Amino acid sequence: MKTIYFDHNATTPPAPEVFQGLSEWAQAWGNPSSIHQSGRGPKSLLRWSRTQISQMIGADPLEVVFTSGGSESNNLALKGVFYKLKNTERNHYLMSRIEHPSIMKTAQFLESQGAEVEYIEVNRDGVIDLEKFAAQVRPTTALVSVMLANNETGIILPIKKMSKIAHEKGALFHTDAVQALGKMLFSVKDLGVDLASFSGHKFYALKGAGALFVKRGTPLEPLLHGGGQERSRRAGTENILAIASFATTREKLNLLEAKILEMQVLRDELECQVLHRISGVSITGKNGKRLSNTSNMVLNQVDGETLLMNLDMDGICVSTGAACSSGSQEPSPALRAMGLTREEAQNSLRVSLGWNSTREDVLRFCDVLEKVVTRIRQFQPDHRNSQQVSL
Amino acid sequence: MKTIYFDHNATTPPAPEVFQGLSEWAQAWGNPSSIHQSGRGPKSLLRWSRTQISQMIGADPLEVVFTSGGSESNNLALKGVFYKLKNTERNHYLMSRIEHPSIMKTAQFLESQGAEVEYIEVNRDGVIDLEKFAAQVRPTTALVSVMLANNETGIILPIKKMSKIAHEKGALFHTDAVQALGKMLFSVKDLGVDLASFSGHKFYALKGAGALFVKRGTPLEPLLHGGGQERSRRAGTENILAIASFATTREKLNLLEAKILEMQVLRDELECQVLHRISGVSITGKNGKRLSNTSNMVLNQVDGETLLMNLDMDGICVSTGAACSSGSQEPSPALRAMGLTREEAQNSLRVSLGWNSTREDVLRFCDVLEKVVTRIRQFQPDHRNSQQVSL
Repeated sequence: MKTIYFDHNATTPPAPEVFQGLSEWAQAWGNPSSIHQSGRGPKSLLRWSRTQISQMIGADPLEVVFTSGGSESNNLALKGVFYKLKNTERNHYLMSRIEHPSIMKTAQFLESQGAEVEYIEVNRDGVIDLEKFAAQVRPTTALVSVMLANNETGIILPIKKMSKIAHEKGALFHTDAVQALGKMLFSVKDLGVDLASFSGHKFYALKGAGALFVKRGTPLEPLLHGGGQERSRRAGTENILAIASFATTREKLNLLEAKILEMQVLRDELECQVLHRISGVSITGKNGKRLSNTSNMVLNQVDGETLLMNLDMDGICVSTGAACSSGSQEPSPALRAMGLTREEAQNSLRVSLGWNSTREDVLRFCDVLEKVVTRIRQFQPDHRNSQQVSL
Repeated sequence: MKTIYFDHNATTPPAPEVFQGLSEWAQAWGNPSSIHQSGRGPKSLLRWSRTQISQMIGADPLEVVFTSGGSESNNLALKGVFYKLKNTERNHYLMSRIEHPSIMKTAQFLESQGAEVEYIEVNRDGVIDLEKFAAQVRPTTALVSVMLANNETGIILPIKKMSKIAHEKGALFHTDAVQALGKMLFSVKDLGVDLASFSGHKFYALKGAGALFVKRGTPLEPLLHGGGQERSRRAGTENILAIASFATTREKLNLLEAKILEMQVLRDELECQVLHRISGVSITGKNGKRLSNTSNMVLNQVDGETLLMNLDMDGICVSTGAACSSGSQEPSPALRAMGLTREEAQNSLRVSLGWNSTREDVLRFCDVLEKVVTRIRQFQPDHRNSQQVSL
C-alpha cells in the first residue's frame, strides 16, 4: 500500500536534486572560515547559496542570515530586535494570535524580560481588522510580527498593508514566512518587511538550514554570540550541506505558479468531495485567502487524534489540531484564537498537499476518510444512544 | 600532490561511515514530532542517537539536549542559566580568559544584561592557579565556565578540581568540551560538571549537530523558544541527518586510547624535528598537560598569515593565531591572555593532527615548514639589512 503523505506543512521529503547533491556537498566539509584550500570550496558554496536564496525571497545576498531553521529565525528576529531596542522608548510588541509556537513562546519570554506584548485578533475566516490593528500600533511599538501564511489553516495575512501601517508609526515589521515559501508568490521587498523567517525543510530541502531576511540597517543583536560568521549576526560553523540543499530548491520555484494551481485544483476537489460525502464538516478559513495546498476541517464528533491514528493505519499521513498530538494538553491555540470551540479544535484535521500529490491520492484519501469517519462516529456515545449499537 | 590537512581543531572530514549513512538518514525525513508513520523512523533514529551520545560522554540519555553545534551549546549553557537565575542573588559569572569566542562574546552580552562577569587567569604554560580561582568564586557566583581543552594550544584544564571548588560555594559549572571529544578520555559524570558542550563536526560527523549535557535538575531557560522538542529545552525540528552522523561516531571511541598515543607520537616527532631544524621556535603550553594532537608554536620573525598562505601553496592546511585569518583586527585573544606578546601571537602557528594523519605527512610538513620559514625570514627587514639581500 502506497503511503499518502498529506502533511507537507509539517515537513517535506527532500527533492531528488537534494539526494543527488548529498555526497558532493558533504565532500565540501572544510570550515568556510579557513583561509587555506579546504575552506575555499565550502566558502564558495556558501556564497552561491546566499545568492540563490536571496533571489528566492527577493532580497540582496547580504540581507540573508543563515540559521539552523525556522524556529531559530523567529527567535533571532524577536530577541534580536528586543535586545537592541531594550533601552529605548520602543518596548511594545504586537503579534497575531495565530502565530507559530516559536513566536508565541518567544513573545512570552520577552514579556518576562520587561517587554510589553499585545496580540492582534484574527477571526474565524482568517481576517484581521486593519483599522483595529492600526489603532494597536503605538509610538512605542518596537516590532510587529505577523505570519505570512498560517501553518494550520493556510490562511494568508495582509502583510503588505500591515507593514505599511506599522512603518507609519516607526515600528519594525517581521513576518514568519516559513509556510509561504514555495506555496505562494511573494518577495520580501514587495511585502515591505524588515525581517522575514524561512526554513529549508518545509520546501523539499534538508533539515538544519533556515534563513532570516534582515533588511539593511535593521537593528539586530545576535542570538548566537561568538565567531564572526554571517557578518557577526549568527555565530557557529555553517552547515553547508543543509544550506546548499536549501539553495538547490531555488530552481523549483520556476514551477511555482503552475504548482499553486495544480494543488488548488486537488485541494478544492478534496474539500468538495469531503463536504459532499461526509456530513457535519466545516472548512476553517474557507472564506478567506488561503494557501492552495492546505485544508483545515472540523469533523463533528470525530476526535482528531483517533482520526489521525485510524488514517495512519490506512497509510495516510495528516495532522490534527487535537491535544496530545502536538505534545500539549490543550487543542491548537491558533484554532481556538480564531474562535473555534475547544471541541471544534479537538475535532480538526489538517490536510496539506505537496508538489507530488496526485488526484489518485486525493480520491483514495476521500474514500478512506469517509469510511473511517463513519466508523468513528458509530462508536460515539451520541450515536450509540440513538442507534443502540452494542460494543 | 596530496593535501596534508593539519587543521583538525577547526573541523574534521566526515568519517567513511558518515558518507555511507547519508542517504539512509536523509530518507528518514519525516518530522519526529509527527505521530503518524512518517515520524516513527526519525523518532527512533533520534532516540538511538541520544543513547549513543549519552554513552559517549558518560551521561543519561535524557541529559542530552541536541543543538545545531558547539556555539549554540555554549550560548544555551550561559544564557540558559543566566535567565533562570537572573532574579536571584546569584548574578556573578566566572570564565577563563582563554575561552572560545562563543563563550567570550556571550559573557560580554550577559554583562550588558546586568550580569557581573570576571575572568580566571591562565599562564603561559596553560596553568590555572587553583587557590586564586577558589578565592574568585563567591557566594553569589551563578556559573563558572571553563573549557576542558583549549582549541588553540590543546592545553587541558583541571575541570574536575575546579567544578568541585565551584560546587562548594553552590555555583554551577559548565565546561566547553568541544575540543576534548575524541581527543582525550573523560566523562561528564567524572568531571562533576552540570553542563558540557559538544560538537559533532569536530569529531568526524557532519556540521549541524551539537549537544549540551544538562545534568538533571540544572536550571536552564531555553535559548530557542517554541515547540516542545528536546523536552522543551530546545525548540525546532530536529536535524536527524546530522544528529545520526554524530551518533555514528560513537563506535570510533573504542579506538580512542590507541589513537591518542598514535597522535602523541606523531605530534612529538613533529615538534622535535621543528625545534631541531628551525631556530627561534617555542612551543606554547609545552610544559602543561595538552591534547596529544595539537601543537601551537611561535616562529620568531615569521608572520602567521604569510606562513599559512605559503604552506597552503604547498598543499598544507594549518591555522594561525594571527589577526585577519580569524576575521579580527587583533591576533588571538586567548594567546595574548596567556602572556604572549602581540608579535608572538601574530607569529604563532597551530598544527592539529587527526586520526588519519601519518608519519609521512609529518615528515613532509617538517621539510616544507623549514623551507618556507627560511624563505620568509630571508625577506624580513632584519635579515635584509644584515645579509644585504636585494629584492
